Amino acid sequence: MGGHSPCASCKLLRRRCARDCIFAPYFPSEDPHKFAIVHKVFGASNISKMLQELPAHQRADAVSSLVYEASARVRDPVYGCVGAISYLQNQVSQLQMQLAVAQAEVLCIQMQQDSSAMQLPRMVDVPSDDDKPSSPPFLLPNNLAHFLNLSPAS
Amino acid sequence: MGGHSPCASCKLLRRRCARDCIFAPYFPSEDPHKFAIVHKVFGASNISKMLQELPAHQRADAVSSLVYEASARVRDPVYGCVGAISYLQNQVSQLQMQLAVAQAEVLCIQMQQDSSAMQLPRMVDVPSDDDKPSSPPFLLPNNLAHFLNLSPAS
Repeated sequence: MGGHSPCASCKLLRRRCARDCIFAPYFPSEDPHKFAIVHKVFGASNISKMLQELPAHQRADAVSSLVYEASARVRDPVYGCVGAISYLQNQVSQLQMQLAVAQAEVLCIQMQQDSSAMQLPRMVDVPSDDDKPSSPPFLLPNNLAHFLNLSPAS
Repeated sequence: MGGHSPCASCKLLRRRCARDCIFAPYFPSEDPHKFAIVHKVFGASNISKMLQELPAHQRADAVSSLVYEASARVRDPVYGCVGAISYLQNQVSQLQMQLAVAQAEVLCIQMQQDSSAMQLPRMVDVPSDDDKPSSPPFLLPNNLAHFLNLSPAS
């Protein structure tokens, strides 16, 4: 295909775009910025080496990740992608903490509910004064006050 | 300092390590692997350019992030750092979902508790048959059964 237009990489590097050019499938001439950015960060020779070391079916993904990484480095020349990783790691830690708190709260409320439910029959079936308790007394008054959302008399 | 030993970068590149070598403060000769890895991924010339474009006080952080990024790319030649970002983004999404569920559960239990607490006084203070209800009746029997954890008679 003698008349084919060079890929974005060969255009930028001002060289003849061979039929088996390793860049051509991933850097079309219509999108010159895509190659320019990875070239600026990784260098054409390194990208070529990296692609050659990969099987053909993984090269498109590798190019995408290299473009993403290079864009991040251009946006943030100090931290690049690592800034995003650090931000996400913090977010994960915070979410794990919030989740642990929320789950503990669920457990706590459920335990309160369970203990209230266990004690309620005694509230309804109030023993008369002459009834002798056959089992250890529950902490009924406190719990009832709590359940009714009443604070104990101060 | 004529007798000073070359930094890891100048050693690898087999060049004289100048007194103002841009790599020397960050790539000591004792740690040749650190430079080798960024050189493999970014190329010495790109690293030198990136460092020159940054103020001196940000260069150490930039070198750390470049080393981290290069190590990730060597470990995972297809996705590099971007693999970690993608993994963390998934983790954040899952945690946000779990947190939303847990918080909804807390709210739901609290609402159940609140409505039970509002209805309890009527359970204790049972009206006699000749009392006329002054307000719309609560759904007392169903709620009591639920509170006592009894299923309705089938």
